Amino acid sequence: MTLARLKDLAASLLTSKLDAVILNPGPTLTHLTGLRFHLMERPVVLFVAPGKDPALVLPELELPKVDLFPYKVQAFAYGENPSEWDNAFRNAAQALGLDGKRIGVEPRQLRLLEFRYVKAGAPEAEYPDASDVLSALRLKKDKAEVDAMRRAVRIAQDSLEATIPSIKIGMTERELSSELVIQLFRHGSDSELPFAPIVSAGPNSANPHASPTDRKLQTGDLLVVDWGAAHDGYISDLTRTFAVGEVDDECKKIHKIVQEANAAGRAAGGPGVPCANVDKATRDVIETSGYGKYFTHRTGHGIGMEGHEEPYMRGDNMQLLEPGMAYTVEPGIYLTNSNGVRIEDNVVVTESGVDVLSDMPREIRVVG
Amino acid sequence: MTLARLKDLAASLLTSKLDAVILNPGPTLTHLTGLRFHLMERPVVLFVAPGKDPALVLPELELPKVDLFPYKVQAFAYGENPSEWDNAFRNAAQALGLDGKRIGVEPRQLRLLEFRYVKAGAPEAEYPDASDVLSALRLKKDKAEVDAMRRAVRIAQDSLEATIPSIKIGMTERELSSELVIQLFRHGSDSELPFAPIVSAGPNSANPHASPTDRKLQTGDLLVVDWGAAHDGYISDLTRTFAVGEVDDECKKIHKIVQEANAAGRAAGGPGVPCANVDKATRDVIETSGYGKYFTHRTGHGIGMEGHEEPYMRGDNMQLLEPGMAYTVEPGIYLTNSNGVRIEDNVVVTESGVDVLSDMPREIRVVG
Repeated sequence: MTLARLKDLAASLLTSKLDAVILNPGPTLTHLTGLRFHLMERPVVLFVAPGKDPALVLPELELPKVDLFPYKVQAFAYGENPSEWDNAFRNAAQALGLDGKRIGVEPRQLRLLEFRYVKAGAPEAEYPDASDVLSALRLKKDKAEVDAMRRAVRIAQDSLEATIPSIKIGMTERELSSELVIQLFRHGSDSELPFAPIVSAGPNSANPHASPTDRKLQTGDLLVVDWGAAHDGYISDLTRTFAVGEVDDECKKIHKIVQEANAAGRAAGGPGVPCANVDKATRDVIETSGYGKYFTHRTGHGIGMEGHEEPYMRGDNMQLLEPGMAYTVEPGIYLTNSNGVRIEDNVVVTESGVDVLSDMPREIRVVG
Repeated sequence: MTLARLKDLAASLLTSKLDAVILNPGPTLTHLTGLRFHLMERPVVLFVAPGKDPALVLPELELPKVDLFPYKVQAFAYGENPSEWDNAFRNAAQALGLDGKRIGVEPRQLRLLEFRYVKAGAPEAEYPDASDVLSALRLKKDKAEVDAMRRAVRIAQDSLEATIPSIKIGMTERELSSELVIQLFRHGSDSELPFAPIVSAGPNSANPHASPTDRKLQTGDLLVVDWGAAHDGYISDLTRTFAVGEVDDECKKIHKIVQEANAAGRAAGGPGVPCANVDKATRDVIETSGYGKYFTHRTGHGIGMEGHEEPYMRGDNMQLLEPGMAYTVEPGIYLTNSNGVRIEDNVVVTESGVDVLSDMPREIRVVG
């Protein structure tokens, strides 16, 4: 499977007029090799050029990983002294004849650390952005990938259901987050979670990117839980919003609106549909209800090995959805200093519409 | 405290002939602001220039964080459409008058993503490596930082002790790793672990950077557990090696040698001692015993907010230890295709020697 991916990449490099790409540890490297490398102070870079065995620069102590590669690679290992590292990169670039060529990079993942070593080894090369070529590789999920995501959704949902009975008024956001994390591992998530859960209540829930605090849950709070699990490197990313005891009418109202927006967003996707339409579907519901200015972010993002990848559900994104693309639908309403609501699901585009991977009840539920 | 750190940074920029530094989400930014930002597809960059209020480029939806800053910052927020982002970076660079100046970067943390946006906003600037200036800021830990690390060590040790009774022959490395992770959260680790635990037994234990597999623990295996916890963003990073049932004499022998090497490494540190001496202390023990070529990595690395930071305990590093520096001592012997041993502790340099934060028994213990 990874060999087929390598061949796909080589083919798209040829059509993109790129002579090579360089990859450092991260999802694309894992997707292409099936292996995980550490992102650390010791640079690891895979050079891929069509028609040649890929070259891998890595620390000597990672050499055992070379035997695990699913295809032949030329390894250039360096020792502990950083003064040797330049040399390993120069040798790798020379082995593939890359100086003066067009070497694609992945700016969201590649650090200046790796970039400067590669550049020292191939100073006359150009380094165009190859994000499009690389994200296209991971854009359409195959059955095994969708199955892994489905499992990650199941683990996440079961974990939150197992956590709900322990939610009590007076518990802090941080305590609730810890309990949820424990349940995620109990239910079999990979040991690297996709992200630390957001558990935010009352005024904190009105900040879409809040981190859990020591604030205690209070009657009348809306409680946003934005969480996910990982299975074999594929992730889920869900949100549900609860009522802590009795909440006021506006809380109930905005919760209802966001449920409708979420349903409209889920229904809007399908093959051939522009991403913008998914955003428009959720936004129309919220705008019609008069809360448009409180929905302060895009409707969703792609999902797979990462929490934020292509395609993005943004009002100006005319990219057309295709079968196998996976993304979140996560409209929200955020009333600053008061309360917020977000409801997020994960969907995959099919031949005829979308498959919604998550099915945990979206209606407001009272906890505490 | 963060204001004092900002002033320290401004002072060292002046002496380093740097006009500014740029920081993206990561430990240095957190150290300097007390705040955590997400490293994601939306770039976040703090520009720090002496004598001016720092400038912060960030997505609009992260704007609430600006109010949490411990000092005044000039915020340049951008919307969801990437075509606006260039502009925000240009405005930030202009507000600090940075074009044509020397803007320091942190290559281990800064991605090409942020770098290319900043460079587009200040195309005539130079971008020298400011790693030394920035790592110096975090190099010597104050009392609060050491206390947080001590707590992270305590959480890690208690978690492994709580896991040991559940270790059984026939359990997979992955199952043991999951159980340990659950215990880490039960014992109060931050929800972002410093790294996924390494649990490797038998032949896998001979790979210093192994990931847990589905291989089952067998009688006669050495079992390496390399794990850590986080508390308030400060971490621990420890290793202990166990015997699964009865192990052969060579396993017992190499375990004994590594215990002695670890003790020698812990004893070697202190103010004014070159880092190289710590490496030499452990390596001498292992070389004298005839296993020198099986100790394939440096003795240790700095520790604090990250698992790998300065100072590095490497044979060629003549940097002198100073009070407040913290690092790992982690000698090992790796017999390829057979078994490996590593024993790792965390120490902090004091006025008179070192304070060893970890005290879990290092002797071989039989499990399973």
